[in-house]
Amino acid sequence: MSSESSVVVSGSEPGGFLARARAIVEAELNRILPEDTVTPASVHSAIRWSVFAGGKRLRPTLLLATGETFGAPAEHVIRAACALEMIHTYSLIHDDLPSMDDDDLRRGRPTCHVRFGEATAILAGDALQSFAFQIIAEDEQLSNKTRVRLISELARAAGTPAGMVAGQAHDLDSESRKISGDELEIVHRKKTGALIVAAARSGAIVADVRDRELEIVSDYAGHLGLLFQITDDLLDVTATAEVLGKTPGKDARSKKATYPALYGVDAARERAAHVHERACAALERIDRPTPLLRTIADFIFERKT
Amino acid sequence: MSSESSVVVSGSEPGGFLARARAIVEAELNRILPEDTVTPASVHSAIRWSVFAGGKRLRPTLLLATGETFGAPAEHVIRAACALEMIHTYSLIHDDLPSMDDDDLRRGRPTCHVRFGEATAILAGDALQSFAFQIIAEDEQLSNKTRVRLISELARAAGTPAGMVAGQAHDLDSESRKISGDELEIVHRKKTGALIVAAARSGAIVADVRDRELEIVSDYAGHLGLLFQITDDLLDVTATAEVLGKTPGKDARSKKATYPALYGVDAARERAAHVHERACAALERIDRPTPLLRTIADFIFERKT
Repeated sequence: MSSESSVVVSGSEPGGFLARARAIVEAELNRILPEDTVTPASVHSAIRWSVFAGGKRLRPTLLLATGETFGAPAEHVIRAACALEMIHTYSLIHDDLPSMDDDDLRRGRPTCHVRFGEATAILAGDALQSFAFQIIAEDEQLSNKTRVRLISELARAAGTPAGMVAGQAHDLDSESRKISGDELEIVHRKKTGALIVAAARSGAIVADVRDRELEIVSDYAGHLGLLFQITDDLLDVTATAEVLGKTPGKDARSKKATYPALYGVDAARERAAHVHERACAALERIDRPTPLLRTIADFIFERKT
Repeated sequence: MSSESSVVVSGSEPGGFLARARAIVEAELNRILPEDTVTPASVHSAIRWSVFAGGKRLRPTLLLATGETFGAPAEHVIRAACALEMIHTYSLIHDDLPSMDDDDLRRGRPTCHVRFGEATAILAGDALQSFAFQIIAEDEQLSNKTRVRLISELARAAGTPAGMVAGQAHDLDSESRKISGDELEIVHRKKTGALIVAAARSGAIVADVRDRELEIVSDYAGHLGLLFQITDDLLDVTATAEVLGKTPGKDARSKKATYPALYGVDAARERAAHVHERACAALERIDRPTPLLRTIADFIFERKT
């Protein structure tokens, strides 16, 4: 890393990486997002309310971790990491809307539309999506070629037919009927998996890895995304509202298809262990140390919130 | 233009340009948007419903016209033109939502959420925004540098604090109170002007014009955007529902700030003539023939729908 670098993530032990990554992502988001006093203040307040709601920052952390694993300087990946978090936050704001999942509470606080009204929440999500692409397009640390690759990657992961919006549409469509385990996996691969895979791949793209390594990263992150969803479903059954920051048991009441509902809690736990193992097995095929990526897999597997 | 070019817009007379531009934009949109049978079919049907609702294609036509004026091959600007129309269409879908402008009818047909439900309409808009950035990022006719410039331009015009979303937020915020003529102009410069300016600039950017010419194009298009809004406001007062394809008089009933409401119909007409003149005056400063850009200014000034 050059002596000018203002962003330092790496340290001696991978255990501290998650907290450090989260801190630098939040500092950078705070620096680049418009202040909530800037017109239109309603939209910017709503954006900051949702972006700084205490999220785990999984996607940007994963992007920073892949970047560091393959040797990209942290200041080359930080903007892309923030863009990923913006896309993720926009999707949470829109998914919570009354016509979608109709959630009043997220991370222990009123959701964006409850706090600011539906119109402002929709606009805040829309603006966050534009801003995500803007900051990558204007990231002077990156070559034009890399920016274009990252934008293509992110846009495909966010949209249809293979990305997040497609997954959310499929999920809404499946609420009223019984779906199979295979179909559930397709929904989750799009709804949460695509953006998690894009996060991991983006770090590797900035580091300009070979295609073979990019494939392995995709394999690892695909399992990570699935693991995240299974543990999410399990927490909805087993955690308390206080720990979760949202109303648990909601999936069951809305008769939503989940891993515990389809397979039972014990089998869902076994499935999580299997998927965690597969993610770690992918890492074995990378010709360099991968402690950070291993730490992230363990963190998701063991998470309590 | 090379012999491989499949896109031909120019012809002997500028009068036919508008119809030709519209036709090639619609053909290209039809080619690149997912079929409505592709999963998620609901979202793709909603996208096609709104994209092919018979719009004027003003923004992509303007982009093609600026490109042609400055010598960019038509096949170099067609994808960017489609991206502009996608951003515009996403904004119409979201603006029509019940929590926003609550419009049931657009271009003579039920609006997207009336036809497909609110959730699908929100997702269709979200997917269109992602897709717009994707097709520019993946446009192999353009250098990476040009793609990055276009994405930055489009993202700024679409988002906040200076773009479309900011204008819509300001507009919603001003519904309940009296605003001045100056404030009204700020709203429209952001809400409709920013994307019209971005359209014109994008054609010039693809043609790699000098900064001086880009400034003139911005000046021309800024007046064009304002002209569009004034004539839009006037049509709401003077046109019939049959011609307009939506309910006229809605602005007055919702006590929305408009040019006729602020200045009266006659003064608003005079203002339109003045702004039209300013747009045309900007064109005089361009060192090459500009019949297409003149035709577009005349078209907006004289439009009946």
